Amino acid sequence: MTQGECNAVPGTSMSAGLQHVRINGGFWGRLMEVNRSVTLPIQYKQSKDTGRIDAFKLAWKQGDDNPPHIFWDSDVGKWIEAAAYSLSASPDAALERLVDSVIDLIARAQQPDGYLNTHFTVVEPEKRWTNLRDNHELYCAGHLIEGSVAYYQATGKRRFLDVMCRYADYIGKLFGPRKGQKRGYCGHEEIELALIKLHLVTNERRYLDLARYFIDERGRSPHYFDQEARARGEEPRKFWAKTYEYNQAHVPVREQAEVVGHAVRAMYLYCGMTDVAQATGDKTLLKACKRLWKNLVERRMHITGGLGPVAANEGFTCDYDLPNESAYLESCAAIGLVFWAQRMLNAEFDGEVADVMERALYNGTISGVSFDGKTFFYGNPLAAHPGFDGNGRFVNKEYHYRRSEWFGCACCPPNIARMIAQFPGFVYSIRARELAVHHYAGSESQVTVAGQTVRLVQETAYPWQERVVLRLTPERASVWTLALRIPGWCREATLCVNDKAVALAPVTTRGYARIRRKWHPGDRVDLVLPMPVERIAAHPAVRQNGGRVALQRGPVVYCFEEADNGSNLNDVVLRPDRAFKITRGDSGLLAGVPRIHAKAWRREPEDWKGRLYGRQGSRHVHCDVTAIPYFMWANRSPGEMLVWIRQAEQGKSNVRDRPRR
Amino acid sequence: MTQGECNAVPGTSMSAGLQHVRINGGFWGRLMEVNRSVTLPIQYKQSKDTGRIDAFKLAWKQGDDNPPHIFWDSDVGKWIEAAAYSLSASPDAALERLVDSVIDLIARAQQPDGYLNTHFTVVEPEKRWTNLRDNHELYCAGHLIEGSVAYYQATGKRRFLDVMCRYADYIGKLFGPRKGQKRGYCGHEEIELALIKLHLVTNERRYLDLARYFIDERGRSPHYFDQEARARGEEPRKFWAKTYEYNQAHVPVREQAEVVGHAVRAMYLYCGMTDVAQATGDKTLLKACKRLWKNLVERRMHITGGLGPVAANEGFTCDYDLPNESAYLESCAAIGLVFWAQRMLNAEFDGEVADVMERALYNGTISGVSFDGKTFFYGNPLAAHPGFDGNGRFVNKEYHYRRSEWFGCACCPPNIARMIAQFPGFVYSIRARELAVHHYAGSESQVTVAGQTVRLVQETAYPWQERVVLRLTPERASVWTLALRIPGWCREATLCVNDKAVALAPVTTRGYARIRRKWHPGDRVDLVLPMPVERIAAHPAVRQNGGRVALQRGPVVYCFEEADNGSNLNDVVLRPDRAFKITRGDSGLLAGVPRIHAKAWRREPEDWKGRLYGRQGSRHVHCDVTAIPYFMWANRSPGEMLVWIRQAEQGKSNVRDRPRR
Repeated sequence: MTQGECNAVPGTSMSAGLQHVRINGGFWGRLMEVNRSVTLPIQYKQSKDTGRIDAFKLAWKQGDDNPPHIFWDSDVGKWIEAAAYSLSASPDAALERLVDSVIDLIARAQQPDGYLNTHFTVVEPEKRWTNLRDNHELYCAGHLIEGSVAYYQATGKRRFLDVMCRYADYIGKLFGPRKGQKRGYCGHEEIELALIKLHLVTNERRYLDLARYFIDERGRSPHYFDQEARARGEEPRKFWAKTYEYNQAHVPVREQAEVVGHAVRAMYLYCGMTDVAQATGDKTLLKACKRLWKNLVERRMHITGGLGPVAANEGFTCDYDLPNESAYLESCAAIGLVFWAQRMLNAEFDGEVADVMERALYNGTISGVSFDGKTFFYGNPLAAHPGFDGNGRFVNKEYHYRRSEWFGCACCPPNIARMIAQFPGFVYSIRARELAVHHYAGSESQVTVAGQTVRLVQETAYPWQERVVLRLTPERASVWTLALRIPGWCREATLCVNDKAVALAPVTTRGYARIRRKWHPGDRVDLVLPMPVERIAAHPAVRQNGGRVALQRGPVVYCFEEADNGSNLNDVVLRPDRAFKITRGDSGLLAGVPRIHAKAWRREPEDWKGRLYGRQGSRHVHCDVTAIPYFMWANRSPGEMLVWIRQAEQGKSNVRDRPRR
Repeated sequence: MTQGECNAVPGTSMSAGLQHVRINGGFWGRLMEVNRSVTLPIQYKQSKDTGRIDAFKLAWKQGDDNPPHIFWDSDVGKWIEAAAYSLSASPDAALERLVDSVIDLIARAQQPDGYLNTHFTVVEPEKRWTNLRDNHELYCAGHLIEGSVAYYQATGKRRFLDVMCRYADYIGKLFGPRKGQKRGYCGHEEIELALIKLHLVTNERRYLDLARYFIDERGRSPHYFDQEARARGEEPRKFWAKTYEYNQAHVPVREQAEVVGHAVRAMYLYCGMTDVAQATGDKTLLKACKRLWKNLVERRMHITGGLGPVAANEGFTCDYDLPNESAYLESCAAIGLVFWAQRMLNAEFDGEVADVMERALYNGTISGVSFDGKTFFYGNPLAAHPGFDGNGRFVNKEYHYRRSEWFGCACCPPNIARMIAQFPGFVYSIRARELAVHHYAGSESQVTVAGQTVRLVQETAYPWQERVVLRLTPERASVWTLALRIPGWCREATLCVNDKAVALAPVTTRGYARIRRKWHPGDRVDLVLPMPVERIAAHPAVRQNGGRVALQRGPVVYCFEEADNGSNLNDVVLRPDRAFKITRGDSGLLAGVPRIHAKAWRREPEDWKGRLYGRQGSRHVHCDVTAIPYFMWANRSPGEMLVWIRQAEQGKSNVRDRPRR
């Protein structure tokens, strides 16, 4: 097969390859350019300075400082993957040389048997494969594989891919259901989705089989994590997380009905499950994915697409537990949701899935990087208060939760980089005679539909502006279906094809307007997606958000910052009866970005004269408040931040006489 | 001096002694009787079963299980203190024999030099006095001293008191500012207030001097905790709590302006400071106490009198940080506040101080024990949700936060017992020619005012009923002042003396109606304290309570439980325009207890059909909700609990046009 192509599984859809979609400016263009020019070099430097790159020299010896950590290889793998996607979009000879130099180190670190892991080669060689539950060996392998696949697709260079095939082959011999093999699987899922990528790029069935084995084996009894703990002389019940729900290994995956445990692990597992289901036509497995999806998006997802409400397990708790100030919401988890949604979307074009993907893309993922591309959030809470950290824990009065330059456990920064860099791959999917447009972004693309090359140009300032123009240039006129996503947040979309209005209702199924016609070169589609500010409420069981609304405009969730509104944001109450006003910034952070202005009431601390508690009846004053996009918070002067703001009740007019029972 | 008498410091007031106030039934009568007949025997059994009592046999040897813990002696000291107060109120020969048997063990555990500590005698003898910061030796000494003083006052038996005087004399030789002495003080304050008690009961000036030394030395530079850490070969900066604010030892006490650190430690320190200030007439010290009091009650106290919002330091964070579900609010801290308030009140009859004391007495202290007297709360959060522990940490879906039979660190149960048992001592204070009535409770008492014995009978079902009748029988007619507290929550109190109305405003200063007259045998005072249900709001900077009110009737704060109101309590919004209804239970837990019924709105989960987020505009239904006293929560079927409930905004009628600036 040729460089940059993937084998689509018959009957399913595939995302359009990265090389075929070129983002030109706009929202994602800026993010990708900052990612390329600032973030990737910074991350290389951090990886170099902290020893992550040089760890592959295998020069560490007992007694030396700074031993290679069990996570490190994955950070490098993700950085290579991000660099590869960036190279696909923007050739950059210096970056490519840098990646080649890293790959050279990696290749030389591979052991004669194919094994490739810095920590377990030099620090604890005797512990190789002794603790899959905790030790991330297969996880690191997976991230290196993803990097190798991306780099091969970006450059056509096989060296890293070949190295990783050797490693995958070694893993495939070691693990499996056959006699003499270890019946293990990784405590941190990742290898599964990576092996599918390896399968798709190499067309080797054995990688798919190995991915499927890892998926099928997970959570079976007798439990592998119990067995290997006993083999280490440990009592399995002393597992710190107390439950294999932490690793989504409490029951076999097809029996799992609730998203549980560590949120990033969960997302990566579900990616792998969806991949295997799609690649093998396993409907039981796809059904499990859909059941888990439903549990997630109907009960356990923050409005930003953030996942995992608590720091204790970096993961899930119970239905409708969606805290704000103490919310963990690791950047990686929302990114994992984007990856899972992409796979679910390729399984079925479902607007509700695309809506969730978009929710994460415009909110809880990109909040993880500062506007200048230099600092990163690990956790992305929905409220912040001076003195408290990102999980709502008191630090000291002077503390402000801000993005960091790096982390000891640095999974988030390169994950953000690789997600932003691969955005072009999220835009379109192609089925035999259908082209789906999932996301709107200024771009020029070339895709193959119904056997023909089609040039596609999107002109739009989405998500800040509501208009999208698509210009289509097929090689020659032909009949196929253009499926345009009509976002769930949009109530009054309008569509024209060559200036002729198309009624949406008759052609829209599951969130996609499906236009089947003979497309001619020069055809033009005009889509208008009106973006009034919406007041979003949460389900009554979300105890943290009773009486509160979040403001959303288009796909973008907004927040209130002290920089615009002063302090005591929780004492501000929006008026339900007053319209919003939009203004746009002139320059800097908020250039062209819609700010929302609202009318509100608040009480004044001065009226309280040293009282902490008082009889109800204190007066309110009118005030104006301003919201900015959530993902942009913590880029200006520090202070409070709030997504879910109180809103005054509307009184009797909206109340039914008696409960329905 | 004779048994049961205390030496009042000239010019100050003293609480009336325990033997002179007999609670007969009513609210506190029930609590004291359950405490005597159920709680004290249970706590003895727990102390016995867990090894706390037998630890004084000093039989533990290296290699044995269950070594005496550094806290254990204090638990036994507090239990003896509680038993002693109970014996003062209700002679109980069996209980007295039991205490004597424990005292016998304690006395025999005293070392030849006077030292008395089970852990550091048998487990780590080499570490005696090496770590005052962490090791609680002086804290344990303090609780044993308190127990010995109380038991002497209750029974006149000197044995335990003599043992503790020997120990105190030993401590006094070891610690102090003189050459050759250790300039240390305890990381957990307690010894200071205990030494004052010892001083008052023995009239020995040296105990007051030692208490004053501990107070004066605290937080001085060079820092003793630094020095002793270095002496142990430890780096002082590696102190786990990171700051000596944890121990209120960051600066000298007279320079402290904010209540910081571990809440129980803080309260015990402030008790000692107030005692020393009062006993020595130290106005600078009293000023520091008043400054700390102001910071506490104006910015850092929960509405229940609970203190210490977070588990991390079991203590304080910053101003206005008053979380609900995650609030720590250790029972001991609210109890410490009662003790401190009692001392502040004896320094000056100040109704605001008495109001705070009453707030803690009727809410955040007695919530710590179940209605049946058998189980105890360590933490007393203001909201609870199934699945989450008392600090708002997820446990599992089936978990409910309930009171426990005991704790490994069992400070709270005997603290609750000793507070309830000494309630009679809180009721009255006496100054030369003035008798103050701080609290209202059915009782018969005999106090000495203006040199005369006065028999005082209170007839009241306070706090459930609003009427209090006081019958006064002085030995013979004489002129003195009766100072009746008019609670701050009460807006329309009325007062009659011998059926003749007395206008309150002219005679009321700082919350006390002061009636100076010639009192005759048979005089009768009728006080009516109307108790409408009040909607209490919190200061605008309390971010956790924006848009919420707590219901309070008289001194009692109410809460909503799932048992009465179903789930999703945070989606209930009270109507500001509707009156409350009161009903009283017939039997059991709520017999005679006012329940508050209110009109509210709520949304119905069924209307949400699997949606997690939706546009605002979902409809509300009318509902009735019922609140019960907060301290009674978690005595019925488990489920949600909420103190601060949402209340609908009142609309424009109550809004000023522009902020005052």
